[in-house]
Amino acid sequence: MNLKEISKKIMKGDFGNLLNLHPSEVAKMLGPIPFEISIQGFLSLPESKQSKVFPYLDLLLQKKMIKSLSKVEATFILNDLSSDDRFILYSSLRGVELSTYIKLLNEINKDSLHDILGYPEDSVARLINTDFATITKEATIAEAIDHLRKHHKDSEAANVIYVVSKDGKLIDDIPVRRFVLNDPSKKVSEIFDGSYVSLKMTDKKEDAIAKFKEYDRTVLPVTNNENILLGVLTVDDVLDIAEQRDTKQIQNFGGVEGLDYPYVKTSFFSLVKKRATWLIVLFIGEMLTATAMGYFDVEISKAVVLALFVPLIISSGGNSGSQAATLIIRAMALNELTIKDWWFVMKREILSGLTLGLILGSIGFIRIAIWQNLHFYNYGTHWFLLALTIFFSLIGIIMWGTLSGSMIPILLKKLKLDPATSSAPLVATLVDVTGLIIYFSIAAVILKGTIL
Amino acid sequence: MNLKEISKKIMKGDFGNLLNLHPSEVAKMLGPIPFEISIQGFLSLPESKQSKVFPYLDLLLQKKMIKSLSKVEATFILNDLSSDDRFILYSSLRGVELSTYIKLLNEINKDSLHDILGYPEDSVARLINTDFATITKEATIAEAIDHLRKHHKDSEAANVIYVVSKDGKLIDDIPVRRFVLNDPSKKVSEIFDGSYVSLKMTDKKEDAIAKFKEYDRTVLPVTNNENILLGVLTVDDVLDIAEQRDTKQIQNFGGVEGLDYPYVKTSFFSLVKKRATWLIVLFIGEMLTATAMGYFDVEISKAVVLALFVPLIISSGGNSGSQAATLIIRAMALNELTIKDWWFVMKREILSGLTLGLILGSIGFIRIAIWQNLHFYNYGTHWFLLALTIFFSLIGIIMWGTLSGSMIPILLKKLKLDPATSSAPLVATLVDVTGLIIYFSIAAVILKGTIL
Repeated sequence: MNLKEISKKIMKGDFGNLLNLHPSEVAKMLGPIPFEISIQGFLSLPESKQSKVFPYLDLLLQKKMIKSLSKVEATFILNDLSSDDRFILYSSLRGVELSTYIKLLNEINKDSLHDILGYPEDSVARLINTDFATITKEATIAEAIDHLRKHHKDSEAANVIYVVSKDGKLIDDIPVRRFVLNDPSKKVSEIFDGSYVSLKMTDKKEDAIAKFKEYDRTVLPVTNNENILLGVLTVDDVLDIAEQRDTKQIQNFGGVEGLDYPYVKTSFFSLVKKRATWLIVLFIGEMLTATAMGYFDVEISKAVVLALFVPLIISSGGNSGSQAATLIIRAMALNELTIKDWWFVMKREILSGLTLGLILGSIGFIRIAIWQNLHFYNYGTHWFLLALTIFFSLIGIIMWGTLSGSMIPILLKKLKLDPATSSAPLVATLVDVTGLIIYFSIAAVILKGTIL
Repeated sequence: MNLKEISKKIMKGDFGNLLNLHPSEVAKMLGPIPFEISIQGFLSLPESKQSKVFPYLDLLLQKKMIKSLSKVEATFILNDLSSDDRFILYSSLRGVELSTYIKLLNEINKDSLHDILGYPEDSVARLINTDFATITKEATIAEAIDHLRKHHKDSEAANVIYVVSKDGKLIDDIPVRRFVLNDPSKKVSEIFDGSYVSLKMTDKKEDAIAKFKEYDRTVLPVTNNENILLGVLTVDDVLDIAEQRDTKQIQNFGGVEGLDYPYVKTSFFSLVKKRATWLIVLFIGEMLTATAMGYFDVEISKAVVLALFVPLIISSGGNSGSQAATLIIRAMALNELTIKDWWFVMKREILSGLTLGLILGSIGFIRIAIWQNLHFYNYGTHWFLLALTIFFSLIGIIMWGTLSGSMIPILLKKLKLDPATSSAPLVATLVDVTGLIIYFSIAAVILKGTIL
């Protein structure tokens, strides 16, 4: 039976097939249907499966379900969640709700939740899983295996075993396969090399992504400053945070504040709010263009033809600026580029701007020449000087665009601000307003005594 | 000794410390220094370490090094690479170079390379690792462990064992921890459940990312259409392709063709080429604004004041368009939204556009009223009608921006084109040109008989 048929049966209240599906598939079935049906489907599952399915539901549905469950059911599920999933749920709760559900946790889970909440929001601590397996180096492999069988169920947590000292300090990590590949009578100390890669609780999530990529790991231990092992971070969480970071960056580039939920799950009001903020900031910035244009109203009334090219000219500056900003911001986000490289970038972008300006300037020049000589539009007797004005303005504006587009992100980073969030409005406003000034100044020089 | 001190020693030709570093750290040390020194450092390592370090070097350096190695050294390294790393290197080679280095491979590696090259570039096949461990279900755990010890070294490949039939068809995957957690006399068939998640060779890389996220796996088996196991895909490669996809998307949003290498590694010529293409396309599209403005030259000469607001008006349309496009494109890339949702999106975006338009329109109106009444600028006796024109134009243009920004990506996807690549220039041109027409048409209606 395929998923579509199962879905139909579910809508009719027949939940038998859910039992044989992977927890993530069950969550997929229960997500988009009316809540009254999905909660029934959820409750039809045995308890052990419920707590496997629960973390795959989206956050809004998780909250709704927990509220509809009996206290006994909720207690079971909340305590059975892995610590990272539990943390994500709890950190989305507020006020009375938060304290109500904290009361349902057992002492161990309550403590670990409180510990995690003490760390900054962008720190690795907020993502750790506190379910991990430890042994001492004096144990033999056989003893370690025995310990594993007694204390760990068949979960991802048993893939890597951590060797710790008596006071809980991390000594090494051993992939469980090494137990299989070696003689059981060997001691743990014989099969490790004492070299491991770890994260600190206070490390930034960003740095965790970089470390996973650099060392090609699937799980990394997380310690406090005394090197005491407090949890592990798994690569699936890293994949999620990398995707969230990129989504936020992409939305920032598009001039939207990063959304907290997917587009379809974001309420209309919150969507408009996130967009309005930026649009208003950009709009107020762009108001300066009206002011700048006001200074040149005499020139425009003398030579209306100058106004015709205003949109073309400033959009070219804006495009070259956003190209440069995008390249630099992404390169900095991936640590390919640091603030120190500013001089390398500046030289490169001035030269790029010159080249690109020459190309677009020539096209602009040719456009006017063709339109004039094929009589598509009459730019007047001084069309050649006008074409020259466009040519030099484009070079100037595009160079200015690449330069400010590349330098503003670096400057913002230097000032410890997030370049992805703040660059777009600054670059757009600066390039547009300055672009107008460059254009009309060049026009004043070239066209003085003829049409101006 | 910290990495900085080691780096200093390396520059002096003292490579002793490289031995104790993690392969990725060695690669980090050898990457940015002059090639003559880095090749010496590389050759100072024992062969087994060389082939561990090699995959961490960046692609350009890999190629340079292989060329500088003796035939014997190159043969060893090329055959010792994991199949996915080998494939990445070979697929960057062309012509004589490619055939020269293919000759250095042994028969097995040559065959698997050829097999992989037969699949499309965006398929999972291009990323698989052909080093994996298999057993039959009739074996006992003890036999399976024995087999592992004989045939597999201590590498990631031994983390999951695949149960296959006699003709190589995939039956199940068993994490190696399950061997440890169960009694060695049990048969393999007793500890598996026959339910597994797998990828097909022809699956798109995109779909692989989604599957890893959905099932929270660190490794997935890859089969052909007959379900015969051909390789495995590991999550570290998935992390890389997700990041590459996002980088390309981000660059596309910024109006740049996706770069093949990081910004700092991309040659000046190729950087300018990738940027020029888009700038020219956008420029030619934006030329239509000059044509559109040409139609209204009489209006502009009668009321120069109208020209002053052109940059403000069209940038608002552009910004609201790019906001909408960004949100929709990203939501589609993450499968949160499909083409079928177009009506939901359209209703939402029209309403968003109206709300945002009312907000910005009011700000624009107030701006003119204040400037006029505080004598910052004199818009003439009919300033109130001008302010009304700006108000209604902003509403119209912003609604048009959100509508086309959201619908063009969906339309492009429907036409099987990549929305991330093609939306930006289309949206920008359409919104700017149409924006001008909306603005001057509204002006014609409101201002007719007064200043027009």
